[in-house]
Amino acid sequence: MGKKLTSRAEDYSKWYNELVIKADLAENSGVRGCMVIKPYGFAIWEKMQAALDRMFKDTGHENAYFPLFIPKSYLSKEASHVEGFAKECAVVTHYRLKNADDGKGIVVDEDAKLEEELIVRPTSETIIWDTYRRWIQSYRDLPLKINQWANVVRWEMRTRLFLRTAEFLWQEGHTAHATEKEAVEEAELMMNVYAEFAEKYMAVPVIKGTKTESERFAGALETYCIEALMQDGKALQAGTSHFLGQNFAKAFDVKFASKEGGQEYVWATSWGVSTRLVGALIMTHSDDNGLVLPPKLAPIQVVIVPIYKGIEQLEAISEKVHPLLNDLRAKGISVKYDDRDTHKPGFKFNEYELKGVPVRLAIGQRDLENGTYEVARRDTLQKESVPAENIVAHIEQLLEDMQKNIFERAKQHQQTHITEVDSYDEFKAVLEEKGGFISAHWDGTAATEEKIKEETKATIRCIPLHVKNEEGKCVVTGKPSPYRVLFAKAY
Amino acid sequence: MGKKLTSRAEDYSKWYNELVIKADLAENSGVRGCMVIKPYGFAIWEKMQAALDRMFKDTGHENAYFPLFIPKSYLSKEASHVEGFAKECAVVTHYRLKNADDGKGIVVDEDAKLEEELIVRPTSETIIWDTYRRWIQSYRDLPLKINQWANVVRWEMRTRLFLRTAEFLWQEGHTAHATEKEAVEEAELMMNVYAEFAEKYMAVPVIKGTKTESERFAGALETYCIEALMQDGKALQAGTSHFLGQNFAKAFDVKFASKEGGQEYVWATSWGVSTRLVGALIMTHSDDNGLVLPPKLAPIQVVIVPIYKGIEQLEAISEKVHPLLNDLRAKGISVKYDDRDTHKPGFKFNEYELKGVPVRLAIGQRDLENGTYEVARRDTLQKESVPAENIVAHIEQLLEDMQKNIFERAKQHQQTHITEVDSYDEFKAVLEEKGGFISAHWDGTAATEEKIKEETKATIRCIPLHVKNEEGKCVVTGKPSPYRVLFAKAY
Repeated sequence: MGKKLTSRAEDYSKWYNELVIKADLAENSGVRGCMVIKPYGFAIWEKMQAALDRMFKDTGHENAYFPLFIPKSYLSKEASHVEGFAKECAVVTHYRLKNADDGKGIVVDEDAKLEEELIVRPTSETIIWDTYRRWIQSYRDLPLKINQWANVVRWEMRTRLFLRTAEFLWQEGHTAHATEKEAVEEAELMMNVYAEFAEKYMAVPVIKGTKTESERFAGALETYCIEALMQDGKALQAGTSHFLGQNFAKAFDVKFASKEGGQEYVWATSWGVSTRLVGALIMTHSDDNGLVLPPKLAPIQVVIVPIYKGIEQLEAISEKVHPLLNDLRAKGISVKYDDRDTHKPGFKFNEYELKGVPVRLAIGQRDLENGTYEVARRDTLQKESVPAENIVAHIEQLLEDMQKNIFERAKQHQQTHITEVDSYDEFKAVLEEKGGFISAHWDGTAATEEKIKEETKATIRCIPLHVKNEEGKCVVTGKPSPYRVLFAKAY
Repeated sequence: MGKKLTSRAEDYSKWYNELVIKADLAENSGVRGCMVIKPYGFAIWEKMQAALDRMFKDTGHENAYFPLFIPKSYLSKEASHVEGFAKECAVVTHYRLKNADDGKGIVVDEDAKLEEELIVRPTSETIIWDTYRRWIQSYRDLPLKINQWANVVRWEMRTRLFLRTAEFLWQEGHTAHATEKEAVEEAELMMNVYAEFAEKYMAVPVIKGTKTESERFAGALETYCIEALMQDGKALQAGTSHFLGQNFAKAFDVKFASKEGGQEYVWATSWGVSTRLVGALIMTHSDDNGLVLPPKLAPIQVVIVPIYKGIEQLEAISEKVHPLLNDLRAKGISVKYDDRDTHKPGFKFNEYELKGVPVRLAIGQRDLENGTYEVARRDTLQKESVPAENIVAHIEQLLEDMQKNIFERAKQHQQTHITEVDSYDEFKAVLEEKGGFISAHWDGTAATEEKIKEETKATIRCIPLHVKNEEGKCVVTGKPSPYRVLFAKAY
């Protein structure tokens, strides 16, 4: 385990980096910017995937798989799209290695140069819309609602485990519709699915809204997003859903015969969330002792640690524990009995605290005599003694309570960190001293947005959904503004 | 739907290619050798994944994720490994595109050349063993049993949907052990897991065995395999499990402190199956009418087609069908009610036959009156009338029977296509006229193996497990041979 975690107050960024490593979630690999997701971190991602995949299927989507590589020419068909991604693309130029004649080991075989370079997908709109041209002929082929679980690559210069990596895992939904209205509804639906997932599974409260033009996805007419707030007062974009209009349909010539008999371009959406969510999860709930995980996404929900001297005591405890393991598993609760003889209980307590196991049961000689378990909950670190006969029901209830409690705690933090300001000075002061979301009037221009970003590093996170009309003046230019938007520094 | 499928007798290869397309399983993409897996094909792969993933976890493995890219220098650390893969590697040399000054559109930005080229993983031993060096210090860290679900790329010149594609999806297990014995046992265990999966889920009978030296995985000391037999008499390697000895541990300097206090190299295995299995599934069971799918892997197990004239009849049928849908779903049976008004029953029957839906229920006016369903099973194309009150139990039993029946049918085909031969003439004659596995004596040399391959295109598929000792003479050289091995032409 090594030495204690740096505290959040001391250095939030260092705390995060250490926690990811110490809790065995992920680590850097020998490939610049690419991480290795370790089994414990991957188990969290698997739980996220399972819940999201169910939600996608329940809303009528099917999974499919499209190629990793995109011909360079495809990428350039949609002008703003190529502009957004060209500068961070990994490019495959050759398909063979050979032994160098000069004994330098293996080198790229220049004879095996590709006629057209291939891009490792940074996102798949282009290869998918090239495919949809073959799949869509008639209104009967619509809507087409497909999702893909995949790895993508964006050559980022500064990377951080989970938050920003050159390769990351994600899902990308790509849908095609006969009407603009239907496509907009789909983009909104998926934003809502993401928000529901964030709040119900991750216990992360989010604000729903739309992006300003300069913050939109390259190729989108509207980008819907969910924005979360981390404990250090910085925002994190947790999911986006794009209304793409007919941009990709036009770029790839995807038309359909309408009911009325005409030929029309198809309307599109795309939407995605990534392994970045694991970073958001860590930063929202965890504390100076380690991870705090919502029970619904915890790989291990309950750990049982025996406290004993000698094999006889251990056997007596194990005899009591084994039926409990079965009872908990029968309820769908994942439980681990850590009867390793190589580590002391104190060491194990620290380890499971660091790894964020929601509920820890300890059972020693006195508990055996009294017919109790010592139950510790990870979120509040509170302990209590619980009669063995109630233990299963107690744990079930506790897991539910914890799921709610950590959401409420995060919601409380979010709510107390949305500050309305009416001057630029106040804007800067709040940003500096308190952080969080700043609700302010803005004149609607990209120039002012850019000026604020340059001077304060804050960006417009979103124009909140159902924003209330309120005449006001831009905090920078004093020009009229019809409603407030949310600013924050962001990950 | 278009015109009828080419029959297997007419042109087996064409039949396969057409079937993959017509049944909506997959298609070629705009990227050479890379396929698009369509929703229906992907749903089969998802079912395979779910079953395999459960089996891996039940045998103590955890999932993790390692980088897509492998630095070129890693690949060259294990000599036979690089030799095996260098010639089919996609190589990333640049990380940025830019607009060409001469107006030629976007081009690779030569300023953004990587210092060290990156290989798109053809398999992950090297990047994983580079990681294991950091994870393994002591015998307490062993065994390490990890699996990864991933995409890999091998630049094949001749590709075929599912069977051989430049990019494919697979799982790759990579385990590390303290002793040779344990590693060998792991490699054997995973071969058995694959065999169990093939037979119980895919209903594909397989022969277990080991590969000859020349057919081994690049870097392995022993390759265990499962070999299936297709309807055209060609074999298909359906899964491999490798005992890697200490080759990768030595190449990447992975040592552990043993219980006794010494420093020892770690013992390794790796094992994988891929989307190729979908090809094996198709070719084992399907017929001239289309796919035949084992119920355990069928995305839709039961389809119900109403036969009606007018909305009133349809409503009466639907009223009867809706509770049945619920009853079947409650039993975990996936069922689709196809009440589309745009297609006639005959069209639907053909479509579900083509797509291999195991059980088709039809219900018309007379069935309503008699309280029956017409039940058609896909494997034998038999139909019968079943009383509505028994229908759920009948379907449950039928799905079980079909799973067994298609396995038995394939097993029968396999058993009748293993031919013992004692001369090279007989060998060639059987290979030509009947195909299948040929059980023959071989002198154990790579030279003879190569000669047979060149002259007949047959390779040694495996030395069957628990092969019975039988003194004999090599069919080619007449030299002594201790047991028979299995030859076949293979995919």
